[in-house]
Amino acid sequence: MTIQCGKLYIVGVGPGDAELLTMKAVRILNEADVIALPEAGGERQTAWSVVAQLVAEKETLLCPAPMVRSREKLSEIWQENAQRVCGVLAQGKDVAFVTLGDPSIYSTGWYLHEKVIELGYESQLVSGVPSFCAAAAGLNRALCEGSEPLVILPAGCDAMEKGLSMPGTKVIMKAGRQIETLREQLRERGQLSDASVAVNCGLPGEKYMEKFEDYLDAAGYFAVVLVKQEKR
Amino acid sequence: MTIQCGKLYIVGVGPGDAELLTMKAVRILNEADVIALPEAGGERQTAWSVVAQLVAEKETLLCPAPMVRSREKLSEIWQENAQRVCGVLAQGKDVAFVTLGDPSIYSTGWYLHEKVIELGYESQLVSGVPSFCAAAAGLNRALCEGSEPLVILPAGCDAMEKGLSMPGTKVIMKAGRQIETLREQLRERGQLSDASVAVNCGLPGEKYMEKFEDYLDAAGYFAVVLVKQEKR
Repeated sequence: MTIQCGKLYIVGVGPGDAELLTMKAVRILNEADVIALPEAGGERQTAWSVVAQLVAEKETLLCPAPMVRSREKLSEIWQENAQRVCGVLAQGKDVAFVTLGDPSIYSTGWYLHEKVIELGYESQLVSGVPSFCAAAAGLNRALCEGSEPLVILPAGCDAMEKGLSMPGTKVIMKAGRQIETLREQLRERGQLSDASVAVNCGLPGEKYMEKFEDYLDAAGYFAVVLVKQEKR
Repeated sequence: MTIQCGKLYIVGVGPGDAELLTMKAVRILNEADVIALPEAGGERQTAWSVVAQLVAEKETLLCPAPMVRSREKLSEIWQENAQRVCGVLAQGKDVAFVTLGDPSIYSTGWYLHEKVIELGYESQLVSGVPSFCAAAAGLNRALCEGSEPLVILPAGCDAMEKGLSMPGTKVIMKAGRQIETLREQLRERGQLSDASVAVNCGLPGEKYMEKFEDYLDAAGYFAVVLVKQEKR
């Protein structure tokens, strides 16, 4: 007897608004036998809330996804998650792993994708709307026009200074915990008045502030700061 | 007698695959009274092909969108398009303008959005999947992980050299006509072996080449080049 192994889909579910799921994501979530979810701080709840109505009756598999910076530790965690997922694929079941935004952009799903392929199983990325697109729509700004570059920077990365000195629009992701440091950095660089902020796009409590300098609340993990010099 | 004016929606329809439309885009295209389309070289046909099945019976409005670099000329063209669209909105009809990818990223829809708001009408951006996400999925690469920046550069922009020297992944958009110049530039910088190319993602004739140096065909307008140094 042979079993046709199942396939893994890393499904980008967009920024949070369930209506921003793609038709393809909806189809794959409907067809999958098992829904896998990252389990980490806010993300589990968030990714789950986006798809909950669609997949209420399905078997689920929780994948621990703690926020660690060590590459080695990350690799270990995702190796274990991949082995559990492959156990399900080996039973001939298709698995859909849900991840916020797009699976190619700072996604926990990417780690799972790589490991599952290394273990000899099939995995496919299913594109989604990145959170910075929803942030731009909510702030009513273009991210880039004509020949302007667009620079995406994770808050606190080594290339912050170099990235902030690029022309065009700068998007700072995962600004949550570093929001005060970022505000100071932008102030020192004379860029604070060009900065806007979007918090929890498409999620309960979403906020869009044209002036980052006026925004003094503690921001959640899902804060996106946009730095764009207006044409004067 | 008063008329409730209609509203404009700038609808990002994603990279080309009709299944990558969001649920929101589908709803708005279904509900709209009039579908507006950019009419420019390949884009008219492409944006139209994505939504054709959905909107077969609808009234359409073609918006001339020639490829011009002059800001003044662009402004003039979109002022005229906006006036025509506002004429329709004034009749109480909702208009959905379809644009490839996401409306905040190098989109012709952004110009229309700005002008229509200036003319006193309502307009809303509806996010879509950008082509570079589909390019990454097709090439089976992550755009960015952990603390890596992501730099989006329109081919031939003033900041090419500075952008290409950033760490992390570089995405070069609209590489079509400049593909040979770009290849030479990457070769001179020692980055050619790190470059992949995606052509016509999600469209008929899509191609994903892991090695840009092996790709010698003349590329279409919809070529996306990814430059990413592998971890060694």
